[in-house]
Amino acid sequence: MSGEQELGITESKEHSPGEWYAEVVQKARLASYAPMGGFIVTRPRGYALWERLQDHLDGWFKETGVQNAYFPLFIPESYLEKEKDVVEGFDPEVAWVTHGGHEELEERLAVRPTSESIITPFMAQWIRSHRDLPLRLNQWCSVVRWEATETKPFFRTKEFLWQEGHTAHATHEDAWSETMLRLDQYEQLYEEVLAIPVLKGRKPPHDKFPGAHTTTTIEALMPDGKSVQGATSHHLGTSFAEAYDVTYADEDEEERLAHTASWGLSWRALGALIMTHSDDQGLVIPPALAPEQVVIVPIWQEDTQEDVLDYARDVADELEDGGLRVHLDDRDERNPGFKFNEWELLGVPVRLEIGPNEVEEGSVTVVHRPDGASTVEDANDLASVIEDHLDAVHEKLYDAAADRLEDGVRSADEVSEILGTIGRYGGYVETAWCGDEACETVIKDEIAAEIVMVPMEEDAEPPEDACAICGDPAVETAYFARTY
Amino acid sequence: MSGEQELGITESKEHSPGEWYAEVVQKARLASYAPMGGFIVTRPRGYALWERLQDHLDGWFKETGVQNAYFPLFIPESYLEKEKDVVEGFDPEVAWVTHGGHEELEERLAVRPTSESIITPFMAQWIRSHRDLPLRLNQWCSVVRWEATETKPFFRTKEFLWQEGHTAHATHEDAWSETMLRLDQYEQLYEEVLAIPVLKGRKPPHDKFPGAHTTTTIEALMPDGKSVQGATSHHLGTSFAEAYDVTYADEDEEERLAHTASWGLSWRALGALIMTHSDDQGLVIPPALAPEQVVIVPIWQEDTQEDVLDYARDVADELEDGGLRVHLDDRDERNPGFKFNEWELLGVPVRLEIGPNEVEEGSVTVVHRPDGASTVEDANDLASVIEDHLDAVHEKLYDAAADRLEDGVRSADEVSEILGTIGRYGGYVETAWCGDEACETVIKDEIAAEIVMVPMEEDAEPPEDACAICGDPAVETAYFARTY
Repeated sequence: MSGEQELGITESKEHSPGEWYAEVVQKARLASYAPMGGFIVTRPRGYALWERLQDHLDGWFKETGVQNAYFPLFIPESYLEKEKDVVEGFDPEVAWVTHGGHEELEERLAVRPTSESIITPFMAQWIRSHRDLPLRLNQWCSVVRWEATETKPFFRTKEFLWQEGHTAHATHEDAWSETMLRLDQYEQLYEEVLAIPVLKGRKPPHDKFPGAHTTTTIEALMPDGKSVQGATSHHLGTSFAEAYDVTYADEDEEERLAHTASWGLSWRALGALIMTHSDDQGLVIPPALAPEQVVIVPIWQEDTQEDVLDYARDVADELEDGGLRVHLDDRDERNPGFKFNEWELLGVPVRLEIGPNEVEEGSVTVVHRPDGASTVEDANDLASVIEDHLDAVHEKLYDAAADRLEDGVRSADEVSEILGTIGRYGGYVETAWCGDEACETVIKDEIAAEIVMVPMEEDAEPPEDACAICGDPAVETAYFARTY
Repeated sequence: MSGEQELGITESKEHSPGEWYAEVVQKARLASYAPMGGFIVTRPRGYALWERLQDHLDGWFKETGVQNAYFPLFIPESYLEKEKDVVEGFDPEVAWVTHGGHEELEERLAVRPTSESIITPFMAQWIRSHRDLPLRLNQWCSVVRWEATETKPFFRTKEFLWQEGHTAHATHEDAWSETMLRLDQYEQLYEEVLAIPVLKGRKPPHDKFPGAHTTTTIEALMPDGKSVQGATSHHLGTSFAEAYDVTYADEDEEERLAHTASWGLSWRALGALIMTHSDDQGLVIPPALAPEQVVIVPIWQEDTQEDVLDYARDVADELEDGGLRVHLDDRDERNPGFKFNEWELLGVPVRLEIGPNEVEEGSVTVVHRPDGASTVEDANDLASVIEDHLDAVHEKLYDAAADRLEDGVRSADEVSEILGTIGRYGGYVETAWCGDEACETVIKDEIAAEIVMVPMEEDAEPPEDACAICGDPAVETAYFARTY
């Protein structure tokens, strides 16, 4: 797709993270910018990451009782308006369809910004008795939110791919268990698949999903010190059930309101992945998500070509038989150095180098993408040896991110300290907070940091200190950070 | 989800196929009507069929070099207008986004009716040399076409799910091979997965995809005598490459125009499936697509309950270990008769009945959904025995449809015979045709039948007869039918 001149990252992750990110996304062929501002084209290598993420998460959802479904792309304006918090929350961001063919529509249709308003009324139709609960639906789709901010592929786009789960339950406690089950699955995805440790917490009340009882979140710390909201899971209480009349007959035939939850993870997870692990050589993909886990680069001269290629093919076959995703780069028109650079740019976690020495010794040279660590391994039982290397690469990525996260949580107990700490180091600042949004605003106005979460426990002991900002009694521990 | 009163199909497939179809779709819980006319909600049992169809087709696509990607939901009006046939072809059916949030957009955005206009310009960016060809992209997504006709779930909806493949090739011949490869895969899906035989052909020139060189189609005959266009695969020639400037450097560094193709299959395939096999008891699903291939209904009295359920669980485990999709219906609150009816309504291809007799004999009673045929089988090596039964059910479904298709193709060589044959029997009427759309109009105006295809061979010998309609020399054999 390109000549040499286009290969290679020229920006620095440390010094110009924004430009570096945009360059990695494009040169690793993950995405291109669409002609309309705010939209991207997800290219095959980017979409393959999303497909593999879907495979993991969708499998876990189905194992835990979720059924996929598909609801319409459009939501009539009158449906959106039934839950007043939703209409207030999303109205400024809705794309409106006003014409079908040459006719003006009688009622405007919202392109879904999220689907509670169209899914909940159907839940109301389908739920009659306690036997119909829990009802757990999910859809993989795209949604549109007309945000005016600058486009950042996967992090911030007007259209994005996501899954949205919508569930109904008999009790408040059941809805709470569901909310937490999905948050735990998101955490598992980040940790086991994306190799990114996260913090779990609740959003402060003024930053909940419109109409929700509680919004829970996982937050991931990026190397530039900003926090990414990795996924959210909302306990919606009975507000949507009330608005759309979702009731059920309990075991005594009494009619009761259902309790609902919704939970979503978007392709922002891919943004966090790229930002966390990649480097000035390009993309780095954790093994669980990599389209190719292993690339084999054969190194030959004219007289050794046949032997080297035969051996390399045997190695590739053996690894494939062992269930690994392997690519043998046997292109004739490229030299090994070019191939090394290209596969580093594309993020393949493990490279095998095979030349005449390896053929003679019955070995392979194994190179780890994140740090270039190189080992010579005997070719016996190779699939399991390489699996260990893939596990080691995952651990290296995870551990580096975990170290950053551990170092990235600091405490402060006065305004100047909050501002200074975030200004100097980024990361999270933990502080006692009175619960008033105005105190967040003080910090936000100074350094654009906000409260990204408070600890999870609904009944956590309030801190003994006074609010670090206003001095009133504190009711929560707040985590301030700058965000994506 | 329902009391007894809601179960069971009340309409007749033979006497009121439209009402019967709508009832099956709703009572088998495949889909519901959305609040906006023309839209449906795809419920979990309906979506599960689509997911399994995707698994089959997507696997075949990937084995044959296709990469999935995702392009924006919206297409700027100016992009749509670049290929004049496309804009003329789709303009009356486009849903337009005119507002984002509270602002009117500077340029209207079309909700994609199909994506040639946004994908081809990116192909132009990504293709430089003959080494980049073929380029084969596919996306699974929804599209919107604002048709005014009556909604028929899966057959005719303003929004529908589909896949659209878009490929670029060095030569006309390569694009032709691609067009046919995809048509063959669609045929394979219909025959091997949906158990529906199809006819393959070309659309007449006046019914091609806008801008296409050739549109190929597979056509399936429904029991009510109408033809369904099952999927289409378009050789686009160079018209899109010209409009969006898709060129490549050949081996001599000469710049050449690419040849493109596009091919799509929508959830109409599910409509054809439902219409073809289902009956007055409800849905019938072929084994390859069924969420549950086998349902086990245990039959017990109080004193035999434990033995029967233990045995039924062992049978379920054995079948699952053998790779089959099995559901054991051990609900206490429903009797076996109710369960038989419910699983027949839901279309499970094979039912196993297990009562005290079966426990004593070490047997199972196997019942085929399509015809109720019942056999007692020894429980040894049961997974392979049941696989044979599933194959037999597939064959029964396929053979019945193949018989209808064979009987459903008739010839005629004058207008009154064409009209009379289609009027009396439905199905296809084969006739010599001069190639003029006006002759199709004669038939269309009388009985709403149209030319659904002409034989595939580009260089087929023209028939020796005169056109059955105008008497001019014939150039093609046309297949007339009423359509969905």
